[in-house]
Amino acid sequence: MNIKNVKVLLFDTFGTVVDWRGSISRKGAALAHEKPLPDVDWDAFARAWRAGYRPGMARVQSGELPWTSIDAIHRERLDQILVEFSLDKKIGEEERQLMNLWWHQLDPWPDCVPGLARLQTKYLLGTLSNGSIIGLSSMAKRARLPWDFIFSSDVFKAYKRDAAVYLGAIELLGLNPNEIMLVAAHNDDLGAARSHGMLTAYINRPYEYGVDQTRDFNSEENWEVITDTMEGLADSMGV
Amino acid sequence: MNIKNVKVLLFDTFGTVVDWRGSISRKGAALAHEKPLPDVDWDAFARAWRAGYRPGMARVQSGELPWTSIDAIHRERLDQILVEFSLDKKIGEEERQLMNLWWHQLDPWPDCVPGLARLQTKYLLGTLSNGSIIGLSSMAKRARLPWDFIFSSDVFKAYKRDAAVYLGAIELLGLNPNEIMLVAAHNDDLGAARSHGMLTAYINRPYEYGVDQTRDFNSEENWEVITDTMEGLADSMGV
Repeated sequence: MNIKNVKVLLFDTFGTVVDWRGSISRKGAALAHEKPLPDVDWDAFARAWRAGYRPGMARVQSGELPWTSIDAIHRERLDQILVEFSLDKKIGEEERQLMNLWWHQLDPWPDCVPGLARLQTKYLLGTLSNGSIIGLSSMAKRARLPWDFIFSSDVFKAYKRDAAVYLGAIELLGLNPNEIMLVAAHNDDLGAARSHGMLTAYINRPYEYGVDQTRDFNSEENWEVITDTMEGLADSMGV
Repeated sequence: MNIKNVKVLLFDTFGTVVDWRGSISRKGAALAHEKPLPDVDWDAFARAWRAGYRPGMARVQSGELPWTSIDAIHRERLDQILVEFSLDKKIGEEERQLMNLWWHQLDPWPDCVPGLARLQTKYLLGTLSNGSIIGLSSMAKRARLPWDFIFSSDVFKAYKRDAAVYLGAIELLGLNPNEIMLVAAHNDDLGAARSHGMLTAYINRPYEYGVDQTRDFNSEENWEVITDTMEGLADSMGV
């Protein structure tokens, strides 16, 4: 596949562009200091919160739940882990709503803003994320991520790796699949994109899950681009 | 209605933000000079091209055509008017494809970039337009319109003033309608938005259609904001 055809870059966001684990644990530590709260392992808290993500999506995909935005899945999981971390008596409804918005305020990996600034000079850049429209656009505004558009699972009423997301993105763009490249830190996401004809770029993020990381330490296929940073992607794309 | 609740501003684009008539006629004059082509009235050409827009959408809305992006409607109309303006023998397929992209390269009214720069400091800004995703995002990139997201009729498979567009936007944002304001130069667009609970801002664009303009010389209802420029809107919104 020839990367010269590419017009649009789509980005997985959680893990690929933003460091959810570091961001959530920093927010937790700041809240604990401010309130104050009993000492908890905020890195473990972040990982436990995120661990509700795939099971929550699976309940939607199986039809057990009707379409449910990731924001609602995050909120349900938050209520569970506040009990697990013995914080449920300390944190009320209003504060829980604010905590859930932490997912809209994630910090990018340090290479992303400089790398995206180069990429946006030549390509249209959009998300292809399981996040919500409001979440992804609020995050981008705060972190200065220069998305030209936001594709959210809420648009397709399906979560990655459901084919409806990739096919929906191709249809909405009105492009040939080989004019679109998915950028992701997750081999299975790229595998799905490739199966629908998109080009693929792998960015290695071996610290995404911390001690919970069990895969995606390396590229597992011959993706068109394989790199460690967004700036490496910019190099490969000639910008 | 209280504008203090507003979190998101949605913008009609053609006519409200960008001057399609001036932009298309300048592109036409430049092409005529470059080729050269026989003298035609490029302002009339721009208006004739745009005159295919509502009938084309009506054929989709009536079910005569399946979902058809505005880019395809513009292209079909281009082929018609090239005959009407006796240019069809002079302009081949490749050039027609490039001409159709003029709709992705429209210039904003002069007040828009400074006004939007102020508004984006406080609000999430998105389009709510009958344009295509690629068209709206390419236009924004070229003109430096700071959209946080793009809502296109292609997402909703419906054209304004169909209720599905407004209701779809409200659902995708996951907000109360009164947290969303539609900004438009067209009273009927604002009327539809208000009927679904959104707040409304009218920007007067009495030169949009030139000699073809028959309405929208003034606000026709007590919209929450009534102004002549995007900077006036920024003033009203306190940014």
